[in-house]
Amino acid sequence: MPGSLQNTEIRLMKRPVGKSAPHDFALFDTAVPEPGKNQVLVKVRWLSIDTYLHERAAGSAMGPVVPLGTRMPGRGVGTVVAGSLPTCTLVSGEFGWQRYAAVDCANVIPLASDGPASETWSLSALGAPGLTAWLALHRVLKPVAGQTLLVSSAAGTVGSTLGQLAQHAGLEAIGIAGGSEKCAQLKELGFNSAIDRKSVQDWPKALRHAAPDGIDLYIDNVGGPILEAVTQVINPKGKILLCGHSAEYSGPPARIATADLLYKRINLQGFLVWDHAADFDQARAALREALIAGTLTIHETRHEGLASAPSALRAMLDGQGSGKHLVRVED
Amino acid sequence: MPGSLQNTEIRLMKRPVGKSAPHDFALFDTAVPEPGKNQVLVKVRWLSIDTYLHERAAGSAMGPVVPLGTRMPGRGVGTVVAGSLPTCTLVSGEFGWQRYAAVDCANVIPLASDGPASETWSLSALGAPGLTAWLALHRVLKPVAGQTLLVSSAAGTVGSTLGQLAQHAGLEAIGIAGGSEKCAQLKELGFNSAIDRKSVQDWPKALRHAAPDGIDLYIDNVGGPILEAVTQVINPKGKILLCGHSAEYSGPPARIATADLLYKRINLQGFLVWDHAADFDQARAALREALIAGTLTIHETRHEGLASAPSALRAMLDGQGSGKHLVRVED
Repeated sequence: MPGSLQNTEIRLMKRPVGKSAPHDFALFDTAVPEPGKNQVLVKVRWLSIDTYLHERAAGSAMGPVVPLGTRMPGRGVGTVVAGSLPTCTLVSGEFGWQRYAAVDCANVIPLASDGPASETWSLSALGAPGLTAWLALHRVLKPVAGQTLLVSSAAGTVGSTLGQLAQHAGLEAIGIAGGSEKCAQLKELGFNSAIDRKSVQDWPKALRHAAPDGIDLYIDNVGGPILEAVTQVINPKGKILLCGHSAEYSGPPARIATADLLYKRINLQGFLVWDHAADFDQARAALREALIAGTLTIHETRHEGLASAPSALRAMLDGQGSGKHLVRVED
Repeated sequence: MPGSLQNTEIRLMKRPVGKSAPHDFALFDTAVPEPGKNQVLVKVRWLSIDTYLHERAAGSAMGPVVPLGTRMPGRGVGTVVAGSLPTCTLVSGEFGWQRYAAVDCANVIPLASDGPASETWSLSALGAPGLTAWLALHRVLKPVAGQTLLVSSAAGTVGSTLGQLAQHAGLEAIGIAGGSEKCAQLKELGFNSAIDRKSVQDWPKALRHAAPDGIDLYIDNVGGPILEAVTQVINPKGKILLCGHSAEYSGPPARIATADLLYKRINLQGFLVWDHAADFDQARAALREALIAGTLTIHETRHEGLASAPSALRAMLDGQGSGKHLVRVED
């Protein structure tokens, strides 16, 4: 069967300067791979668009850098069409930016059937973004009810999961997002208040205004000038968790002042979700329960067709759309 | 009796620009204070010279700023000459830069008589610097034998205490100090190796050379370019404890790169010893035991006469001398 099909893949052709852009990538027709022993052939239905893909392409990540001229990596959801699992099984795994992927059975996860809405959960609330939110909050920061939590990129998947988890934890949650439309959304997503980053001139002033009792906790997805301002205004003994630095891909890095951290005894901690694999099952169970109960909702921004993956990545980096960015790979 | 004596005090006359300098201060003859009810009159024998005094004078500290035209604060050791404790009792307390101080009995600590060497221990190994070293190591960093610890200002009181504690804890300790004489001293003080900061052109290179297995822990007393370089070269999951930032009093602040902290999951924590008061007794007991056993030695740099306090402060900020800087208040 694989022989009768045509595969397509997207390769990285140029090292991105600043943010990844469509001209850094190109589409190639290839042969559909033959699944080997203990492998399955998966027809990809969804690809997950995440900031780490930009970092792998740009070579700024700790993880492996994508060699020029090779296929982009990327997690996805697809259906088994051949190999050692029943056909039509819905699985998630590392498939890359292509229509068909041959992967080891051990590296795919059959999806639980939680109803029609659940097909993409494994890439959002039950994938790295949702796990990041849950583990950052409940395993690292361990907040106390009544504390004030600030979140940047609050309309993204990590951010919007955090808003809803913060509400359940009795926190005062303030979200930062770009534009009045997203800021209105934030209030539906558990945030008590929102700061529109596009309208801020003076970050320390905006943060003091939004948080009259000060900020106790900051989950940072952007770095840059916002992080810099938070270190200035955060309450003594405040905690800052660095989960991303997307504002620094094409902007200046934060200049954190040592004296602020020292005198206020701030704790600044870099966070990568993969360090917490031992807690994934517990986090996933809690997140799945909230999804099914309807107390956790993830918005999606869907891009149509494999060829849209490069522009989807750029749209996400530019802050267009909200929630989880997904590419629906057409038939 | 107090009426027959002459007091002298040193007042802050100008807000220091950069490092505190003798011309920022002036000497005044004053009346010896009358001890009130539940007070003692103390004849000051030793004054402790510490970086926080500069910060209080310059107005850069979180703590109270010294108003212009008023007496400098400062901890010291002295003998009771009048009031509600037996005369000749040796006590430590907050006396300020003066010959005679009237202080509440509740705010002085009678010194244990551990022999002639012990008179100044309460200002060094058993005071804030020694407590900082012990608590930073054993209560915050909690290192594992075999880890590599880097310490800046390693020939100072905090630093040299750390070198010796690190040796007992089975750590590989690297000290940074200014000049070959101090670097030679560091090896007597428990450090496995020393970096002479005066001979370094390229900090990341110097640190990689000194620590071929990388740095796991950094206790930072200086901030500035050394801190910046450490964030670049420190091992993943490394910990940095910010205890001081003396290099930034007259030099550029560190520019910490967010991406380094994030990808390497570094923990950066501001530390003030006063947050750990609940553990002071345990720390003091362990430090006293080491002092008496001779496994902990603190070098002293002594300055003669009350009038030398401003130049002593400047000498310490300039990195002259080593170990604990003390002013011996003349009769």
